[in-house]
Amino acid sequence: MSNKGSLYLIPTTLGDNEPLEVLPLSVKKIIEDSSFFIVENEKTARRFIKKICPKKVQGSLKIETLNKFTDITLLPTFLNPCLEGENVGVISEAGCPGIADPGADIVSIAHKKGITVTPLVGPSSILMSLMASGFNGQSFAFNGYLPIDNQERNKSIKQLEKLALQKDQTQLFIETPYRNNAMFDSLVKQLQTSTNLCIACDISLANAFIKTAPISYWRKNKPELHKRPCMFIIGK
Amino acid sequence: MSNKGSLYLIPTTLGDNEPLEVLPLSVKKIIEDSSFFIVENEKTARRFIKKICPKKVQGSLKIETLNKFTDITLLPTFLNPCLEGENVGVISEAGCPGIADPGADIVSIAHKKGITVTPLVGPSSILMSLMASGFNGQSFAFNGYLPIDNQERNKSIKQLEKLALQKDQTQLFIETPYRNNAMFDSLVKQLQTSTNLCIACDISLANAFIKTAPISYWRKNKPELHKRPCMFIIGK
Repeated sequence: MSNKGSLYLIPTTLGDNEPLEVLPLSVKKIIEDSSFFIVENEKTARRFIKKICPKKVQGSLKIETLNKFTDITLLPTFLNPCLEGENVGVISEAGCPGIADPGADIVSIAHKKGITVTPLVGPSSILMSLMASGFNGQSFAFNGYLPIDNQERNKSIKQLEKLALQKDQTQLFIETPYRNNAMFDSLVKQLQTSTNLCIACDISLANAFIKTAPISYWRKNKPELHKRPCMFIIGK
Repeated sequence: MSNKGSLYLIPTTLGDNEPLEVLPLSVKKIIEDSSFFIVENEKTARRFIKKICPKKVQGSLKIETLNKFTDITLLPTFLNPCLEGENVGVISEAGCPGIADPGADIVSIAHKKGITVTPLVGPSSILMSLMASGFNGQSFAFNGYLPIDNQERNKSIKQLEKLALQKDQTQLFIETPYRNNAMFDSLVKQLQTSTNLCIACDISLANAFIKTAPISYWRKNKPELHKRPCMFIIGK
């Protein structure tokens, strides 16, 4: 692997805060030293790079876009710079590449090509909300989005509650932000009065809201979650 | 909550690297501004504080120790400074408090007392290894330690493989570092030839090793894992 470049997984901010408030210096350094990037959205990635490294010449950047519209047969070519000894950085829209975005595919190809993959530190709404929930962090599952169909979703909520209570496996999931209030309504209706629910939104931002309480509390105290990025966690 | 102090969850480095290489400025700032800490080990916590804030007067720090020897009936009193308007920081031995250490209990009490809990950004071997594995990050489970008994452990390995392959739920687990090589031997013996295994050790450190490959590869290429902090991941 010695003369190949590395694939760096570069986290970004979760909102409009100062990059170095939530990202370590190694992120700035890798961006400063790299010319090749694979990004989810070119415009926002350029804005992020400019904010963290204002002196970087944007015209010199070679940027490939990786999102649901990308022709996946082209993905292996995005790693050609690594084979020629150059580092390549992957930047996703918010948070950590590869966790809940298309970055995982490019990482998988990198391993097959024997390219070193280096993850950098940054904010993760999954990990930060789990830390702040007070729930079991020795055993937990992130489930992504629950089913949209009402009946299917209610079934899924009951299943997650069972796993949390009977197996002490903390259950995390998300919802499309404009449906958060509807998800909240489903949760307080479906879950038992004594079950603990953590709601964590706008994590790492100035208006962050993180609270763990039993359903009996939430039934009387409905937070405004509309369009706020939010993690729901059921735990013991 | 307005006149109460907050409980800050303060991540640390995963090894002997420079704190600001892997921790953002907000960590330094919160440590600078706080006098009250709850830590897993006082000696290493003081060393960490000194490294990130060399000018801080160590004599002025009020430190409570929270580990398996702590009398849990005392835990609520550790949060008294918050009730008097002071911030309190929780620092664990390595990585993020509350994920795989005693911090979760104090967080849970904080929520019951209506104290704001604020997680800060830092390195997490769970999240960073998942990012770098290339496996599904939309659905994953962290399982902590597998059973020590050989038969039980083999059964557990087979169950995790089934969940990874049939439900596409990525499975992460750890082992006591001096037993890593034995765990590796069990994995290559129990898992199917085509199953993908990611081994991620010394994450965020200079000698990091992260590789995803099928069991057929690992059977011919045994890495040296003895006493290196290591994450094992089975994925699709």
